[in-house]
Amino acid sequence: MADISPVLTPAEALQLAQDAAKAMWSRDHAAQALGIAIAEVTPGTSRLTMAVRQDMVNGHAICHGGMLFTLADTAFAYACNSYNRNTVASACHIDFLAPAHLGDSLVAVAIERAQSGRTGVYDVTVSTAAGKTVALFRGKSARIQGEVIASFSQA
Amino acid sequence: MADISPVLTPAEALQLAQDAAKAMWSRDHAAQALGIAIAEVTPGTSRLTMAVRQDMVNGHAICHGGMLFTLADTAFAYACNSYNRNTVASACHIDFLAPAHLGDSLVAVAIERAQSGRTGVYDVTVSTAAGKTVALFRGKSARIQGEVIASFSQA
Amino acid sequence: MADISPVLTPAEALQLAQDAAKAMWSRDHAAQALGIAIAEVTPGTSRLTMAVRQDMVNGHAICHGGMLFTLADTAFAYACNSYNRNTVASACHIDFLAPAHLGDSLVAVAIERAQSGRTGVYDVTVSTAAGKTVALFRGKSARIQGEVIASFSQA
Amino acid sequence: MADISPVLTPAEALQLAQDAAKAMWSRDHAAQALGIAIAEVTPGTSRLTMAVRQDMVNGHAICHGGMLFTLADTAFAYACNSYNRNTVASACHIDFLAPAHLGDSLVAVAIERAQSGRTGVYDVTVSTAAGKTVALFRGKSARIQGEVIASFSQA
Repeated sequence: MADISPVLTPAEALQLAQDAAKAMWSRDHAAQALGIAIAEVTPGTSRLTMAVRQDMVNGHAICHGGMLFTLADTAFAYACNSYNRNTVASACHIDFLAPAHLGDSLVAVAIERAQSGRTGVYDVTVSTAAGKTVALFRGKSARIQGEVIASFSQA
Repeated sequence: MADISPVLTPAEALQLAQDAAKAMWSRDHAAQALGIAIAEVTPGTSRLTMAVRQDMVNGHAICHGGMLFTLADTAFAYACNSYNRNTVASACHIDFLAPAHLGDSLVAVAIERAQSGRTGVYDVTVSTAAGKTVALFRGKSARIQGEVIASFSQA
Repeated sequence: MADISPVLTPAEALQLAQDAAKAMWSRDHAAQALGIAIAEVTPGTSRLTMAVRQDMVNGHAICHGGMLFTLADTAFAYACNSYNRNTVASACHIDFLAPAHLGDSLVAVAIERAQSGRTGVYDVTVSTAAGKTVALFRGKSARIQGEVIASFSQA
Repeated sequence: MADISPVLTPAEALQLAQDAAKAMWSRDHAAQALGIAIAEVTPGTSRLTMAVRQDMVNGHAICHGGMLFTLADTAFAYACNSYNRNTVASACHIDFLAPAHLGDSLVAVAIERAQSGRTGVYDVTVSTAAGKTVALFRGKSARIQGEVIASFSQA
């Protein structure tokens, strides 16, 4: 994990991650509109869920790739902002492995793979509740100015 | 462009591309829900538009990366299915270059870069109406069984 | 790991992976020319090493990104061909995290992340002997016709 | 093209690009060892050639993907350093479309697609002399401190 808040105890770092997530969530209209739920956030990781709804599928009842990406990208955002440093996505790559269907309960788990200066690499796995891997996502993050909690409170 | 319908005249190929898009669109609940509009489809290309709405942004009125991806991915889908062969996304890569804001009118232009066997590579550029490049997307397509018009009509 | 050789015992699968690697290596002029060594191959994984030589660096004694990629891509190839099915790279993505220098001993570890039909996803981590992560690589594989050992023996 | 040297005339910008390439090349042991030749460099673009040699192929006389990547990555480096600002690769993506064979004369053409702050996106197409597209490469660049000509002269 990134050594960017060296003075925090593990409990403080966890609290900070959860406070940052809470601040982001209150303004995250896109994630809210899709019914995404934040199941867990720790320093450098996150776990989110989303159910595949009628307005996320095509005529074959297959979930739009953009909705799978959005779930993964959201998990990435909560993981890479968990240190309370404003961080944005610089680039993302997604491999689609299997279709998700109407009614599927999806889980996205994000973990930090590397930190180097202001950039980081995070991996997100999107699976069905039954454990089938639907997509693998890798995101590159870039830290920008400001803190998450302060930024979203004043927004 | 892919030489997969060699017997068609250019006018017939264009008509087929438009008919395939129409068949896809009628069932594309996700694109419809986001207010995406299909401005143009030709063999191997597409041009789509989307306005950034309140439910696509965060507290800073910045468009969610997932919504930008979804617009690009949809343009990719209409371009790579324009030959009326069922084609899905295998992997996608997106570089985020500049933020899009609430109210921005976005345009996504997809073009075919290569075809090799059943796989293809498509590039999508997402810009604002003012011409600022917001994101560059590259998608890899995989042709599967069946035809677009027949598949979506019977769905 | 991929269930594509269900009748083999673990010991047989390991032997097959090592035999496939041996067959590939005997003809792998590019990897040999770079001084790459195969430290370990098991079903779905590999571990390779390479020392950064003078002819791999620029004027700042920094290893060329193409050489880092080649090491990672080679590890990917040995991992995804370990089931003795001919498999090629379809697409690869690499994030460069830190420079490698002249004289560094690099290690590349490849692991299988997913299999879906004829395609697979493999992750490779390139590190220095001291444990610094230099690059993260993700490759998409495509299985083609033929078996590795037979193909390279008759070549 | 990037507006980062606004005071130069086109002729001066072209001269600067060629001088930067010359400074890089004199120290680029890796590119020299592979027999890569720089055919042309202009602000934001480059065109390089490489012949597929025996030590770049496997037993099927197919060029190693790492050598194709290295050619593309080198073209990317000469294009993104053509403004005489030290610039490194942050991440690269490559799609392999067709094999290259022993003896093929390969051409890599790099063009700048976008600039945003210190980062840029470049596309490289690798083709055979006969015009077959072998690989499509997209690289993300990051500008760091220093100038190319000064850096490589003092190295």
